[in-house]
Amino acid sequence: MTAHGIVETPAFMPVGTQGTVKAMLPRDLKDLGCQILLANTYHLYLRPGAELIRDLGGLHRFMAWDRPILTDSGGYQVFSLAAMRKISEEGARFQSHLDGSAHLLTPEKAMEIQAALGSDIAMVLDECIPHDATYEYAQSSTARTIRWAERCLEARRKKDQLTFGIVQGGMYEELRRWCVDKLTRMPFDGFAAGGLGVGEGEELLHSIGAFTARLLPEDRPRYLMGVGRPDDIVKAVLAGYDLFDCVIPTRNARNGSLFTFDGKLSIKRAEFAADPRPVDESCGCYCCRSFSRAYLRHLFVAGEILSSQLNSLHNLYFYHRLMESCREAIRLERFQTWASGFRLRMLGEADQEEAR
Amino acid sequence: MTAHGIVETPAFMPVGTQGTVKAMLPRDLKDLGCQILLANTYHLYLRPGAELIRDLGGLHRFMAWDRPILTDSGGYQVFSLAAMRKISEEGARFQSHLDGSAHLLTPEKAMEIQAALGSDIAMVLDECIPHDATYEYAQSSTARTIRWAERCLEARRKKDQLTFGIVQGGMYEELRRWCVDKLTRMPFDGFAAGGLGVGEGEELLHSIGAFTARLLPEDRPRYLMGVGRPDDIVKAVLAGYDLFDCVIPTRNARNGSLFTFDGKLSIKRAEFAADPRPVDESCGCYCCRSFSRAYLRHLFVAGEILSSQLNSLHNLYFYHRLMESCREAIRLERFQTWASGFRLRMLGEADQEEAR
Repeated sequence: MTAHGIVETPAFMPVGTQGTVKAMLPRDLKDLGCQILLANTYHLYLRPGAELIRDLGGLHRFMAWDRPILTDSGGYQVFSLAAMRKISEEGARFQSHLDGSAHLLTPEKAMEIQAALGSDIAMVLDECIPHDATYEYAQSSTARTIRWAERCLEARRKKDQLTFGIVQGGMYEELRRWCVDKLTRMPFDGFAAGGLGVGEGEELLHSIGAFTARLLPEDRPRYLMGVGRPDDIVKAVLAGYDLFDCVIPTRNARNGSLFTFDGKLSIKRAEFAADPRPVDESCGCYCCRSFSRAYLRHLFVAGEILSSQLNSLHNLYFYHRLMESCREAIRLERFQTWASGFRLRMLGEADQEEAR
Repeated sequence: MTAHGIVETPAFMPVGTQGTVKAMLPRDLKDLGCQILLANTYHLYLRPGAELIRDLGGLHRFMAWDRPILTDSGGYQVFSLAAMRKISEEGARFQSHLDGSAHLLTPEKAMEIQAALGSDIAMVLDECIPHDATYEYAQSSTARTIRWAERCLEARRKKDQLTFGIVQGGMYEELRRWCVDKLTRMPFDGFAAGGLGVGEGEELLHSIGAFTARLLPEDRPRYLMGVGRPDDIVKAVLAGYDLFDCVIPTRNARNGSLFTFDGKLSIKRAEFAADPRPVDESCGCYCCRSFSRAYLRHLFVAGEILSSQLNSLHNLYFYHRLMESCREAIRLERFQTWASGFRLRMLGEADQEEAR
């Protein structure tokens, strides 16, 4: 339950990096059942600026989205996009990737920006630890993330904004346990697992992910940040996670990679040039109800904007249908069976892809 | 009345160059009142190919558009886009701008392609005469265009496809009159004025345009090809034209230039950075009902696809509202008064633009 409504979980959050889910009209996002969006604090802070958005009535009004929004803290993008970043106890100094201007992102500043944006859920500032970090680095970084979490809570300004803590600890179960232990003593409204899906490989992602999920309180939302592919999400739901975000459906769409319940399909392939079938016969989205693979391939090859629009619409519809299927299977108490069936189907196609 | 329904005139046809009106879902085109589209034979013939589209059920099905479609003959693009073009009595030889492959577009071929596409209205193959052509060139070119028109009529294959003749003649009234005289003796379903809006200047456009319109039979549609700006269209409606097409609303949209009934607005300007107003207070489109100028400027500056989507939606809505206003004023028999008022308002803004 957020200031802008209830979110049924497990739920997937499309990523609206710069205040727009790329190539999607908000009304079409609503139509496909999107309940909640993620927006990137780093991007919106740099352009057009958080005060500007606040003065225009907040992010919901700015982007014409009246359902819940979760904002990240900006930390992840500082570490992945900004130049000359330097981390200290105070916060993270960095230069904008847009114009090189110097900025300091502190826990307090991250909360201030998110309050100005007016999101429903704010994330604490953390450091996303590289997956190959040493134990010593991971330990001292996690200790700082814990101290930053406290500072974030103290800096909370907006009454109707929920705040989620972020569990770090690298690939070390001991550190994950310690971080969970510290964070769960603080009055967070939910918890996220961070530092996963960052190159550690599937096995570690799921083992550390599941380990962390088991430690987190069941009465509050558990959010696996930045994950991921459909089968990663299904596995993570099995492990107990409730919330997900990822650029995969929209980014893949723009690259012509389309999801179906029988695996992925690369629309640019010559074999689809005269294919009258929709992307997915079983899909009820506008794209599949209206257009052939041949048309979608033509749009992609011709470099048409409509290609990104239709592909994004389809992939997001797929992700939301996937989450709906998860929720349905959970309601019917047969999620485990459903999940193994789903993974087998996706796996089958992956093998076929490799064989080609 | 076409095979896919009635078109209320005067009407504007958005341009769907490659089988898509750039950045627009067909369902959104329908929502804003679009009655008929134009598609480019040249582009679709080269990619993905007319036979392919025919085999997939025709262009309507291919692009999921069940209302009327008019196709041009391909001639204009051969002269403006293709390399190494050479014109002879037989037709136009050219090399594809995509891959350099050699092609020959004859009147018969132009009709064959348009039959394969299955458009509701086919245009004859003509040569679009440069505005600065000599009398001698214009005369011999027009004579060939007339002979090609006859060949096109003989080559008609599709019973439920209307065919329009195209009046050329350059900037010479005598040649225009001669061309009209010849073409109106042939059983065309409508007539177009070609070779206007090609750099001859506003005065000649409207004088030659009006001269030609007066000569054409009133009982069949008169189509002014490739025109134009809102005030050009209003003037041309006054002169008697019924159909228009132009890339201006969609191309300008992608460049951040937005139409309002008080003139144009360049959304990238810094003055709109914090402007909470919609593009046009009086506009009922999704873009104006939902988003501020500040948001639209942000999208444009950030290079977001949604910028092209929302701007195109607004500009096409504007054009269709403009045509609706024309039709309404004509119904009420006060079009002349309405038109002068409209042109004054647009002119006022143009002066303001210059003064800045």
